[in-house]
Amino acid sequence: MDEDFAKWYTDVVRKAELASYSGVRGCMVVRPYGTALWENIRNDLDARFKALGHENVMMPMFIPEGLLQKEKDHVEGFAPEVAWVTHGGEEKLQERLCVRPTSETLFCDHYKDIIQSYKDLPKLYNQWCSVVRWEKTTRPFLRTMEFFWQEGHTMHETAQQAIDETEQMLNVYADFCVESLAIPVVKGKKTDKEKFAGAESTYTIEALMHDGKALQSGTSHYFGDGFARAFDITFTDRNNTLQYPHQTSWGMSSRVIGAIIMTHGDNSGLVLPPAVAPVQVVIVPIATHKPGVTEKATELCERLAKSFRVKIDLTDNSAGWKFAEYEMKGVPLRLEIGPKDIENNQCVLVRRDNREKTFASLDNLEESIAALLRHLHDALYEKALARREEMTYSVGSLDEMIENAANRPGFIKAMWCGELACEEKLKEVAGVTSRCIPFEQEKISDVCVCCGKPAKNMLYWGKAY
Amino acid sequence: MDEDFAKWYTDVVRKAELASYSGVRGCMVVRPYGTALWENIRNDLDARFKALGHENVMMPMFIPEGLLQKEKDHVEGFAPEVAWVTHGGEEKLQERLCVRPTSETLFCDHYKDIIQSYKDLPKLYNQWCSVVRWEKTTRPFLRTMEFFWQEGHTMHETAQQAIDETEQMLNVYADFCVESLAIPVVKGKKTDKEKFAGAESTYTIEALMHDGKALQSGTSHYFGDGFARAFDITFTDRNNTLQYPHQTSWGMSSRVIGAIIMTHGDNSGLVLPPAVAPVQVVIVPIATHKPGVTEKATELCERLAKSFRVKIDLTDNSAGWKFAEYEMKGVPLRLEIGPKDIENNQCVLVRRDNREKTFASLDNLEESIAALLRHLHDALYEKALARREEMTYSVGSLDEMIENAANRPGFIKAMWCGELACEEKLKEVAGVTSRCIPFEQEKISDVCVCCGKPAKNMLYWGKAY
Repeated sequence: MDEDFAKWYTDVVRKAELASYSGVRGCMVVRPYGTALWENIRNDLDARFKALGHENVMMPMFIPEGLLQKEKDHVEGFAPEVAWVTHGGEEKLQERLCVRPTSETLFCDHYKDIIQSYKDLPKLYNQWCSVVRWEKTTRPFLRTMEFFWQEGHTMHETAQQAIDETEQMLNVYADFCVESLAIPVVKGKKTDKEKFAGAESTYTIEALMHDGKALQSGTSHYFGDGFARAFDITFTDRNNTLQYPHQTSWGMSSRVIGAIIMTHGDNSGLVLPPAVAPVQVVIVPIATHKPGVTEKATELCERLAKSFRVKIDLTDNSAGWKFAEYEMKGVPLRLEIGPKDIENNQCVLVRRDNREKTFASLDNLEESIAALLRHLHDALYEKALARREEMTYSVGSLDEMIENAANRPGFIKAMWCGELACEEKLKEVAGVTSRCIPFEQEKISDVCVCCGKPAKNMLYWGKAY
Repeated sequence: MDEDFAKWYTDVVRKAELASYSGVRGCMVVRPYGTALWENIRNDLDARFKALGHENVMMPMFIPEGLLQKEKDHVEGFAPEVAWVTHGGEEKLQERLCVRPTSETLFCDHYKDIIQSYKDLPKLYNQWCSVVRWEKTTRPFLRTMEFFWQEGHTMHETAQQAIDETEQMLNVYADFCVESLAIPVVKGKKTDKEKFAGAESTYTIEALMHDGKALQSGTSHYFGDGFARAFDITFTDRNNTLQYPHQTSWGMSSRVIGAIIMTHGDNSGLVLPPAVAPVQVVIVPIATHKPGVTEKATELCERLAKSFRVKIDLTDNSAGWKFAEYEMKGVPLRLEIGPKDIENNQCVLVRRDNREKTFASLDNLEESIAALLRHLHDALYEKALARREEMTYSVGSLDEMIENAANRPGFIKAMWCGELACEEKLKEVAGVTSRCIPFEQEKISDVCVCCGKPAKNMLYWGKAY
């Protein structure tokens, strides 16, 4: 992975059987192992959303051209990258339909019909679906023409309630990354240049990959009442006055699978955080020609299946082949059991991250496995955090920025005046983009790293996926 | 519902807040209540598929025109009703893409890459997604341009294994309808005229709606090796010979929500089978101005939430309004609790189907509710079965068929010679289509109801959604 990170990435995606290229340009086939991983991510996030009162809906996949055009900034941002349906069967359509690149316009069209009074608010909707953006260059999970995601779309009585929702959902994403994916993230706000088309402000969580490049892992947008005005959505408030509601949207996509691969993976392949791993424990029986081994291993599998996602490999491949296979697939724990272990009422547990071996009694095996999975999760997080901290540094001048951006991958902290011109110049001369204005600010100097004028904020800069 | 069944249907869809029309022609917005119902259906079916070894995948939503054309019968069946993407952003595509109407071609394109040896078989894949068919007239759930479904696609070593899979999955659908939806179905085979484009044979389950019209509720197709030959998918068999694998596909869609509505619904609205109802028990506290009522009802809700999908309505709407609202939404059980009930350590349980009231002790309330939900499910099934039997009858001559088809809604059993000409004539003169050749055959007469030549099979005929 140190020699050619990009090749390592695509090799892992292919060899771990997460996804493969399809015959459709820019689209991937997400294979059973990748789909199971995505389903675990979906179920985890979905439970977090529902616990906060959100409800799922299913919107159409098409947006008529006229509907897409209703909000000016939004259509400018998305029209250049949508797929257009122009014919239904033999018939040419009077109005083109685009395949949704995101669904603000569809939700607004529906909200117009169902919001009349403050009693109808808040509306806290979410949907799980795929969307399409016409990308030139694509890589599995990181950037594909069609990708899988959830998009939350909410409407509120007041601006403050919508802002609170925007922040709450960013925190849900951050907590999910930490608690379930073992990925540390920086929370912050996007600059105007980088914000979502049509949003007043965009919040983001940014993760740092193994190669020092940033990955935007989830975003949450505050729209004010801009779309509500464009779509003429009004409600009667508590004082019987007509008002525009305030809106948010927030999304996390199958990109996070890319984040998992590039945060935790190593030269043997994938390393999966236990909370979302399709298989948490793989049982590899040793010396299966000896009587009783297969039976005992199968019995263990049935027992453990009550507490964990467990798989037993009874194929006639060699034990060594199996070890390599499940390391490639990032299974957190391997359980080996052979004739001697059975005699001693024990088994061997091997952690995927550090290969540490433990002999565990079969009596309280569930406790031992649960503890090891917890330790593994914590170790993944600590390791990723330590690497991110090692790769995060400050620069004080433009020269320093240029030199470091060229030679030292990572998050670069630097002051900024707030002007688009400086943001564009830094991209041009140093090849970095602003990742976010972190909520946790620190003062590196008084002046903008680019123009030397008084600085407004400290930003994270970097190269990004 | 007896006066205008079609209007009753759309009223129930709208008032129960299952779905609403969208601004996109022929597409619906599935609202939170409808989506929760679909998620319960999905989770139930998904568990049944996985228990039989099936794995989920996620395929692209687009099919390049050249790929769709590879199997001749298939493209003839589907090309007239697909949506065509011709432009990506500003750029005109060299090859048009259709939005998948079904995904046999995509699965075959993938199977070609991953099937080499008999060791790679069977492949038992499924996906949950939406598909698009350019329909002229649409009705929510029953026929929409975009609809939600699952499509299983499997590959097998031998024809017999594929035929077994086709039958197994039809049985899974039938069991699901009976056990989870309380809908009786007739299992059978489609005639050649009615089978799926490209299939060797199509199996179907047919349900009878309240108005005597049939609803095809799930289909399972056996393809032989037709697609495998068209896509050049081969494998090395156990004798080291190159073979074509044998294929199936099977699907159930959001149409089954239409079947639920039209099988169990009544003049007060929806009636939902407990296994898939988003809310199984709704708690309506009575006389909430009296001290302790709201607290006790809330406490009960928290307790019952451990065993059931339960909701409490604490809004200031009247109890009568709430009763009507949850009857419209088809919630299987209503739990009423007021000051006197609390004194007596009891509550009132009211069944949605027959309004039967039971006083139940709070001590073993979980058992009482579970029993009532079971009885309600059984009663729904028995009632639907009795109605279907009452509405199923035999005819022996063409005149009898014409007269009955015009005046007596239901399943019409009649003998058939096997000729397409007779099938077409029956459609023309009696307005009926063949629903299926039921697996359970009976002999009504020796001759075809249409031409009088020797009969091959007894068929179910009828008008259908």
